[in-house]
Amino acid sequence: MTRLVSTAKGIGRLEDDGETVALLDLDAADLGAALGAGLDIASIATAAVRDGVPVAQAQLIAPVPRPSKIWAGGYAYADHRTEVDYNGVAVEPVVFPKAPSSVIGTGEQIRFPKAAPDEVDYEGELAVVIGRRATDVSEAEAYAFVAGFTIVNDVSARDVQKGRIPGRAANVTAAKSFDTFTPMGPALATLDEFADPDDLHLRTWIDDELRQDARTSQLIHPVPALVSYVSRQTTLEPGDVIATGTPAGVGHKQGRFLRSGTEVRIEIEGIGSLVNICA
Amino acid sequence: MTRLVSTAKGIGRLEDDGETVALLDLDAADLGAALGAGLDIASIATAAVRDGVPVAQAQLIAPVPRPSKIWAGGYAYADHRTEVDYNGVAVEPVVFPKAPSSVIGTGEQIRFPKAAPDEVDYEGELAVVIGRRATDVSEAEAYAFVAGFTIVNDVSARDVQKGRIPGRAANVTAAKSFDTFTPMGPALATLDEFADPDDLHLRTWIDDELRQDARTSQLIHPVPALVSYVSRQTTLEPGDVIATGTPAGVGHKQGRFLRSGTEVRIEIEGIGSLVNICA
Repeated sequence: MTRLVSTAKGIGRLEDDGETVALLDLDAADLGAALGAGLDIASIATAAVRDGVPVAQAQLIAPVPRPSKIWAGGYAYADHRTEVDYNGVAVEPVVFPKAPSSVIGTGEQIRFPKAAPDEVDYEGELAVVIGRRATDVSEAEAYAFVAGFTIVNDVSARDVQKGRIPGRAANVTAAKSFDTFTPMGPALATLDEFADPDDLHLRTWIDDELRQDARTSQLIHPVPALVSYVSRQTTLEPGDVIATGTPAGVGHKQGRFLRSGTEVRIEIEGIGSLVNICA
Repeated sequence: MTRLVSTAKGIGRLEDDGETVALLDLDAADLGAALGAGLDIASIATAAVRDGVPVAQAQLIAPVPRPSKIWAGGYAYADHRTEVDYNGVAVEPVVFPKAPSSVIGTGEQIRFPKAAPDEVDYEGELAVVIGRRATDVSEAEAYAFVAGFTIVNDVSARDVQKGRIPGRAANVTAAKSFDTFTPMGPALATLDEFADPDDLHLRTWIDDELRQDARTSQLIHPVPALVSYVSRQTTLEPGDVIATGTPAGVGHKQGRFLRSGTEVRIEIEGIGSLVNICA
């Protein structure tokens, strides 16, 4: 795969050494803008190099800093359904929108909202970035509409999600839409060189303690099925993001929530590590 | 008030005769783009006129065709709470996001999604368009962040909302996010000339039968309270839309849903009429 990044200096390609960013000769400010302008991911990935800089100096931002929409999957792994005692009726995928204003990049801080600071939790997830406008697409053709993969931390205020705040109705999407609640990155990995894009190793560490360890082959609805499903709900537009849902190992079932200074690190093979510290 | 419109020919101002659009000398393609570029609503409203055309010829589109986000209020009027037997805990406002890709303008067709064609319902609502970036604003200062008002039809697939589709979990936001499910318009009315912006007459007709008849003074949370609340959940950005919720008179409690050919007309004093026919 090619790992593309959005940076403060424009769009770049991560070199294989993982240390250098080749800045690309593209007009768009970031990958979302490039996809939105109609560029296909292959021509972005093969654009001419205009400069090379160390990763630290490039200042990575989220691959798509402001998607036109974000859908996040829920109850997407069997072990997570068991963990949270899910006994609902969902045979079809469950998806919730998140506010685009909640996106931050790797290295940025997760902030606890004043409205709900106490039960903030992480969810490590594989995320799909849409490359082409998609309405009612089949599973078989779904990957043709995908630009690549990234990582999303679907941060969630569990007290808002579960209706534990007095006077406030339970609200899943509000719980997941606070500012800084969608860390995304570090890169957008194109699909071409994954041995099997439907079987990737996903791990989440909280302060170096391994909390989630799964393979995306365990998704109840694999990526093509999920993309097809969502495309039948809403037209997908270039740069839209679908987070595929989280496996077992979230904090709240253990009564452990994020605290100031906690580091969340999510790693998916072929994509890299998304690292955020809580303010 | 000044009534501003987005059209296929650019941004315009509705003349008092209601028949003519004065096209304005502004670079932006639509009001959303103008607000997003940092123009304030007063300078948009007073821009120089470059041409005048009949309304029909101007081809109105939604005032903000693709907001960066849309929040829609729920259970916002006491009579609607009674109508739907709401017995929840909400003392605070209830808000759900809607997908920006669901927006259409006045005169465009509402389409029934293949995934849920049978229980599509209307909700006539006053909607707020944000003019300036807003985080944690107070009620007292809230109106300073508002560009103006428009009308939204918060179209909802009740079977998706209530979990009546086998194998599919109840999902409020998915129910409201299908393509064409957010008719918006016809105009963005600035606040300056409303006698009382918190007391507007709202009516909805289905095929000329009056179904909703309310005043926005009946909102449980008036606009400043709602804007303040939402700004504490997510940073509001220019062009973001908050639909304030619907009063009593929705179709599903009477077992009446939208059908092919049905016309929905929502009128709010000072803003105009939003008219959409179902495909």
